[in-house]
Amino acid sequence: MIEDKNPQRTSLAQLGEFGLIEHLTKNFDVTQESTLKSIGDDAAVLDFKDKKVVVSTDLLIEGVHFDLAYMPLKHLGYKSVVVNLSDICAMNARPTQITVSVAVSNRFPLEALEELFEGITHAAKEYKVDVIGGDTTSSQKGLIISITAIGEADEDEIVYRNGAKQTDLLVVTGDIGAAYMGLQVLEREKQVFQVNPNSQPDLDMYSYLIERQLKPEARKDVRTLLHALEIKPTSMIDISDGLSSEIIHICKQSKVGCNLYEDKLPLDPQFISTCEEFNIDSTTVAINGGEDYELLFTIDINDFDKIKGNPNFSVIGHMADESEGINLVTRANTQIPLKARGWDALSE
Amino acid sequence: MIEDKNPQRTSLAQLGEFGLIEHLTKNFDVTQESTLKSIGDDAAVLDFKDKKVVVSTDLLIEGVHFDLAYMPLKHLGYKSVVVNLSDICAMNARPTQITVSVAVSNRFPLEALEELFEGITHAAKEYKVDVIGGDTTSSQKGLIISITAIGEADEDEIVYRNGAKQTDLLVVTGDIGAAYMGLQVLEREKQVFQVNPNSQPDLDMYSYLIERQLKPEARKDVRTLLHALEIKPTSMIDISDGLSSEIIHICKQSKVGCNLYEDKLPLDPQFISTCEEFNIDSTTVAINGGEDYELLFTIDINDFDKIKGNPNFSVIGHMADESEGINLVTRANTQIPLKARGWDALSE
Repeated sequence: MIEDKNPQRTSLAQLGEFGLIEHLTKNFDVTQESTLKSIGDDAAVLDFKDKKVVVSTDLLIEGVHFDLAYMPLKHLGYKSVVVNLSDICAMNARPTQITVSVAVSNRFPLEALEELFEGITHAAKEYKVDVIGGDTTSSQKGLIISITAIGEADEDEIVYRNGAKQTDLLVVTGDIGAAYMGLQVLEREKQVFQVNPNSQPDLDMYSYLIERQLKPEARKDVRTLLHALEIKPTSMIDISDGLSSEIIHICKQSKVGCNLYEDKLPLDPQFISTCEEFNIDSTTVAINGGEDYELLFTIDINDFDKIKGNPNFSVIGHMADESEGINLVTRANTQIPLKARGWDALSE
Repeated sequence: MIEDKNPQRTSLAQLGEFGLIEHLTKNFDVTQESTLKSIGDDAAVLDFKDKKVVVSTDLLIEGVHFDLAYMPLKHLGYKSVVVNLSDICAMNARPTQITVSVAVSNRFPLEALEELFEGITHAAKEYKVDVIGGDTTSSQKGLIISITAIGEADEDEIVYRNGAKQTDLLVVTGDIGAAYMGLQVLEREKQVFQVNPNSQPDLDMYSYLIERQLKPEARKDVRTLLHALEIKPTSMIDISDGLSSEIIHICKQSKVGCNLYEDKLPLDPQFISTCEEFNIDSTTVAINGGEDYELLFTIDINDFDKIKGNPNFSVIGHMADESEGINLVTRANTQIPLKARGWDALSE
């Protein structure tokens, strides 16, 4: 346990649980029409009328999912909300509410929790979701964040993982791999700092990668973009564990195969140069590195013209008969079976 | 970290996260009409039609909320669900779904998680709620359980904390204080066991108290009972932190005062005799001990005849003008202001 030696800091015990909840949640506005009753009772009350309700939940643990050595608490609060909203976006639904539960060991002063909740509040405002409930308690070790996200959609708008057809095209939003390389840069800086605490890192040349790792965004805009293009994906998933892992999910649940083309992968120039610097194969990172929070989806081949040339979307492959398997087609035009290595395996 | 020396046990790493989730959730049936899509996609999809949706969440941390020294994992799984459903019942709503997230350190073998999920599954079946999502991950220390409960109700059925009127009666279900004394008995046995690991405790005379601590039930039946009596409470809350703390919540949110009568508190005979044995004042425990998960509510005084003599309910006081304050009226007929000590304070 790290002793708190700063006398200006407020210990959590001074406030007590109810005082703490009241203090931390006082900045939460209610903006959603569907929120009838927010924080302050045994439960929140919501009214979705004729909409369907979409629910997802995630648990984030210090030392497992994040490292406070390079993750500022404000960013962590923001990212915790975003990763949950990303799941709602991956259903083609509109995020509307979240609950936020936090457990902290008493090495955290009130000011640390305030910073965390500042990030949470910022994300809630940015994504226009109401914080409708939660729990604040102590932990034996470290910081634990549990968020449940709720969204709404018409029944015919909702996109599942299991609707891909073997003639569909495979599409990804934005670019991929950058969040993983951002983590590598931060890990390296942490080690440099441990050796020389006076080092002044110059991270300008990695700014995009670091932002992708520390302050990712959920692709809330994709629902609107696709709606405007009159495209309804046949299947959709968000890229949290890595592209190959998510492709395999879609293929297994839709009972189809897939060919993913190496030369179609959307990579940022900063990502490519940093992979070279770290002497890591960019394709390996792009398909296995996680935490990009982009959306991966399949569309009917007849929708190709609607999406062609659109800077938001990259067609990276096509689905196939299940018997063809799930493959990466390399630049040299050889087929390699895709494996789900995912974020966990890579980080080991 | 406790090394796992039993070779028959399965380590969590062998299964991997996806295998683990699949393995643990395979016994979850979908029985609620409102569950359109359960586990297996980015999010669950629910349809509440014209009902309102009620949402509550809780975080349970080993060493803070439970002690595995005397809390069997199966009971812990059951109780984790129950404490969340109790919040839904306290809104006079019907619990329908839960999400369950669990983080464990790798000292837990698969068999331990199976036991925990056995309890969760049992509670889900008993209370007819669908487990629609969750997350399974590793922790740095101990076991962490995060549950979000969802329920439904018509808008005019929902009961908030803020509707008590100054002429209302204060009513509690069941009896109170027993869960706290159950904890005292278990703590004492733990200490005896630490001194003499071969001791064979005879806990028969505390069976009710221990059951109240280890296997509490949510008062799902109260909604039906009140409906049959044609009573709609004016305010309601569940007793998780202790009677006095919950009375203060209702009074503050409803802007009323209250007189609670010591001689009306519903106490079980086993509770009274154990308080005597432990030389603890039974009234102090009854009003400050938490975790009873009974419901506390206020009713219009004109509904008194409907509830009089009903074994499920005890009228324990009456509300008053806010200026009268919140008081305990003792057997000696003196008024003492009620303080919110709650469960945390008592356990220190």
